[in-house]
Amino acid sequence: MAEQFASKRNLKFMLYEVFNAEELNQYEYFQDHSRETFDMILDTFYKIGSDFLYPLYQELDKNPPQYVDGQAKVNPAYREYMKMCGEVGWLNANWSYDEGGQQVPTTITMACSFVLAAANCGMTGFPMLTTGAANLIRVFGSQELKDCYLEKMMAGEWQGTMALTEPGAGSSLADIASTAEDTGKGYYKIKGQKIFISCGDTDATDNTIHLMLARIKGAPAGVKGISLFVVPKFRFIEDGSLERNDILCAGLEHKMGFKGSPICTLNMGEEGDCWGYLVGEANMGLAYMFQMMNEARIGVGIAAVGKATAAYYDALEYTKQRLQGRKANQKDPSSPQVPLIEHADIKRMLLFQRAVCEGGLGLGLQLAKYTDLAEVGQDKEKYELLIDFMVPMVKTFPAEYGILSTSAAIQCLGGYGYCSDFPVEQHFRDIRIDPIHEGTTGIQAQDLLGRKSTMKKGAAYRLFMEEAGKTIAAAAVIPEFKLQADTLAQGLQIMNDVATYLFGVQKEKGAEEFLADATLYLEMVSLLAVGWQWLMQGIVAYNALQGQPTQGDERFYLGKLQTLKYFFTYEIPRVNSLAHVIKTSQGLTANMDVSLFEEE
Amino acid sequence: MAEQFASKRNLKFMLYEVFNAEELNQYEYFQDHSRETFDMILDTFYKIGSDFLYPLYQELDKNPPQYVDGQAKVNPAYREYMKMCGEVGWLNANWSYDEGGQQVPTTITMACSFVLAAANCGMTGFPMLTTGAANLIRVFGSQELKDCYLEKMMAGEWQGTMALTEPGAGSSLADIASTAEDTGKGYYKIKGQKIFISCGDTDATDNTIHLMLARIKGAPAGVKGISLFVVPKFRFIEDGSLERNDILCAGLEHKMGFKGSPICTLNMGEEGDCWGYLVGEANMGLAYMFQMMNEARIGVGIAAVGKATAAYYDALEYTKQRLQGRKANQKDPSSPQVPLIEHADIKRMLLFQRAVCEGGLGLGLQLAKYTDLAEVGQDKEKYELLIDFMVPMVKTFPAEYGILSTSAAIQCLGGYGYCSDFPVEQHFRDIRIDPIHEGTTGIQAQDLLGRKSTMKKGAAYRLFMEEAGKTIAAAAVIPEFKLQADTLAQGLQIMNDVATYLFGVQKEKGAEEFLADATLYLEMVSLLAVGWQWLMQGIVAYNALQGQPTQGDERFYLGKLQTLKYFFTYEIPRVNSLAHVIKTSQGLTANMDVSLFEEE
Repeated sequence: MAEQFASKRNLKFMLYEVFNAEELNQYEYFQDHSRETFDMILDTFYKIGSDFLYPLYQELDKNPPQYVDGQAKVNPAYREYMKMCGEVGWLNANWSYDEGGQQVPTTITMACSFVLAAANCGMTGFPMLTTGAANLIRVFGSQELKDCYLEKMMAGEWQGTMALTEPGAGSSLADIASTAEDTGKGYYKIKGQKIFISCGDTDATDNTIHLMLARIKGAPAGVKGISLFVVPKFRFIEDGSLERNDILCAGLEHKMGFKGSPICTLNMGEEGDCWGYLVGEANMGLAYMFQMMNEARIGVGIAAVGKATAAYYDALEYTKQRLQGRKANQKDPSSPQVPLIEHADIKRMLLFQRAVCEGGLGLGLQLAKYTDLAEVGQDKEKYELLIDFMVPMVKTFPAEYGILSTSAAIQCLGGYGYCSDFPVEQHFRDIRIDPIHEGTTGIQAQDLLGRKSTMKKGAAYRLFMEEAGKTIAAAAVIPEFKLQADTLAQGLQIMNDVATYLFGVQKEKGAEEFLADATLYLEMVSLLAVGWQWLMQGIVAYNALQGQPTQGDERFYLGKLQTLKYFFTYEIPRVNSLAHVIKTSQGLTANMDVSLFEEE
Repeated sequence: MAEQFASKRNLKFMLYEVFNAEELNQYEYFQDHSRETFDMILDTFYKIGSDFLYPLYQELDKNPPQYVDGQAKVNPAYREYMKMCGEVGWLNANWSYDEGGQQVPTTITMACSFVLAAANCGMTGFPMLTTGAANLIRVFGSQELKDCYLEKMMAGEWQGTMALTEPGAGSSLADIASTAEDTGKGYYKIKGQKIFISCGDTDATDNTIHLMLARIKGAPAGVKGISLFVVPKFRFIEDGSLERNDILCAGLEHKMGFKGSPICTLNMGEEGDCWGYLVGEANMGLAYMFQMMNEARIGVGIAAVGKATAAYYDALEYTKQRLQGRKANQKDPSSPQVPLIEHADIKRMLLFQRAVCEGGLGLGLQLAKYTDLAEVGQDKEKYELLIDFMVPMVKTFPAEYGILSTSAAIQCLGGYGYCSDFPVEQHFRDIRIDPIHEGTTGIQAQDLLGRKSTMKKGAAYRLFMEEAGKTIAAAAVIPEFKLQADTLAQGLQIMNDVATYLFGVQKEKGAEEFLADATLYLEMVSLLAVGWQWLMQGIVAYNALQGQPTQGDERFYLGKLQTLKYFFTYEIPRVNSLAHVIKTSQGLTANMDVSLFEEE
């Protein structure tokens, strides 16, 4: 297990050199912050990561939470961690002072989320879901709901969850079947079953507050008839004390990885007495829940970056130390063996990992910066459109390429990478959930192509092109980047051609064929987005090298330029083949009769 | 867990319709066989797979072999299986009658190996290694060694192993450090340590016969000083009885998957009394061992096809049954949900899996057919060259694309794919070892580009092009395949350009830069090879459809054509981007100073 799981040097590069986090302090909302407070926050969470979370990473995989006495029994460290998160103000760091928060920019908290997930992804879901659930109550809930729940949740004493999935409704939320019946007494009676509920019922906290989707009796079919409820494990009764609600954890799923984060099945109303409290208006549940879903999707993406990054540092440390073989041009068997990292194929795999990790981090922080700019009212609509457009990429690129990246980390370690002495195999298992939960890759792809690319007459799409275009323009005047700037410009042109082609398919052939290759479209656009991020990082590194960097900084910046070149040379060419496939597939999957999978 | 783990229908298509296995019976060596004996053999092993092996697949993952009393304690089923393999003549089915075998064509035994691995990959390594080890003794050993070991091994009473890897010598076999000292008494004394030895010391058999590489004292450095020894766990003494040899299993590794196949560390000569028997001549060990390494590489490839195939059938069965969502052009939420398989994105993932599995199986069986033709003396040199050229692809394509294929199987099942209720997550873990053991992908790639493509002045390379060219010519006259035939012909032209380019790099820049992108070259050539196989299958299916197939056969053949089209539309375009990368990378990795991975 490498000492390093995330790089402070790179984070500071990203935050201060690429994204100019300090410029946020000029806005009133963030004016109390400064580079010093940002550094302090980063240092705090890096320390929590290295001293508290990281040493538990393998332990939680070997001894995962168990189902005991009707709930998940977790390592006592979880309770300690949730309290710690409450005490340091992590859970509501972004909230306004009025709401008890610290008005920390999302740019900074997302960097911290990355660090925590790199240290121990399984534990970090607990605070993330608590914040997300509390945010729903904060934004859409009544004053009474806020008064009842937010304080305890923000103290880390009560856990929040996101209770959507049901046995018959996974990707298809329209088919949610849990019911809610108004009692006329200020609460509804809930009946149904939820599955795969992360942190659904554990002994890490004293109460669990489920933000749950259900259908009020008589509501319209489909997504227009879904409402949002607060369903606590322990409910308040009139005297202000708590009593057990009729919601039971029926068991935990056994997962391939990500074992530090238990997922459970919940049965509501088996005794006919599960109380739930309506959040906001009836039948608006899915619209509200999209807030938490977007937060969770971004959270999944940034956690995937974390997992892949920790695996990368394991591979880097191992390949620097492990001697194996000789260079291809140096075959004298009596000469000493060289470190693995000296082999071109290993360098290629390390550059791939670095490109995915630091490029994926760039995507996430770019979205965070847009979030902060939207928060302070700077072209709010513009930034919200950019965020909408980028969420599917921020979620999916690190998840899908992260599988390949952690797999490359295993390959760097050879046989040892496949054994549990090193945590790379755990990272590979842990990250495999990320293209599934919080909306599969297929769902993200349909979102990007079917909604985000067309909404507001393509406004989000055009804004994305404009933002990338600005970076291309800045790069094009630097001879060093002429090739990459041209390549990215051509890539965006290809993307445009593909989009035009697909909108034609939509018109002529309908939705089924239009969306058939959405997953490839998502991959293609994501590669270009990551290319844009690398070009942005490259410009900063190039400019820094024109000054008088220290020797260490010089290596760091040159490493950035090398990784940029790697990404454009080795990965961007996929854009062409993806575009080619999309434009030639001609409904091959959409129109295929499934009987052709039969063999007799 | 799906009922089906491999398809008899597809195997019969491959064996009898594509590869005309019966035509082998015209040769004297195979003349006692017929379609009937082939079918009987296939049915026997399919039954062993379905009735005996498959039900144990998940069990061995949950309760893997444990280190007890200095060896791996395995489920008693292993002992039963090894005996069964001995009794049905599985272990030496290919051997000549003179040698106690049954002269079964490799085309048939490889099909059986595929079935067994699909049913339970972990257990099937036991017979495979026993056969491979015995083959070394059979081909290179003295009569005395043959007399001592072969009978018991072929009865499944003694296990064979392949003992190469050491703590300081994994991919770099030149650095093997175990020593052998001639005692002058007919045996050598061996000293050293071996790691990652599959089936290295278990209670499944009464003795373990290690085929081990070691260096005789005073031998030259590097691969030219390596000799091959038989090192038994129990050795014969003069009266013909057995006594314990000084070789100890020091423990088992804990692997991410493939747990049914234990790997151990062996310490030889801790008491200074480990006896080993030289096989063949001194210092010829690596050359001999290449026979077993090639067998094992082919075995790994075909096992990977098996794992991916079993996962595919899980995904197929699940997506046919599981209802989720509606088609994109049918959004009425009150309409019933459709099976997952109706969604274009799911069909795409299933076609990908089918293309990888049935294409990978084609590659393996093609090599098997060449093996049989070489065996009967038909253009022996030609077929041996083709085999040499294809081994790296037969090993690596199913291993690397199998990771993606089993990952796609997980994705088809969504959240359930990530949980241990279904075995797809196990297949994903199990297959991840295949790009590592028996030579990593990087090693296979260097073998293909650095040796196989250039050996005998490119003779193997040209033969491969010729074989693919014949299929292209046959396809080109069928209008249905015009596009694919042209595409494959262009692909081979691209491959040729790339090879010419790389040989220029070799001349001008040297070995290091020449081999830097060997892994990409291997992927590119493999995609073309699989495209060739698909075209071959497509022609057969097309011709069959011109007759009067039953309705079931019609579906099967149309499914073949659909998968062929999928592969050429969705996967072959990668050839272009891989070629582009190779031709533009300009030593980016080879010449990179590794200090650029430093961050300060």
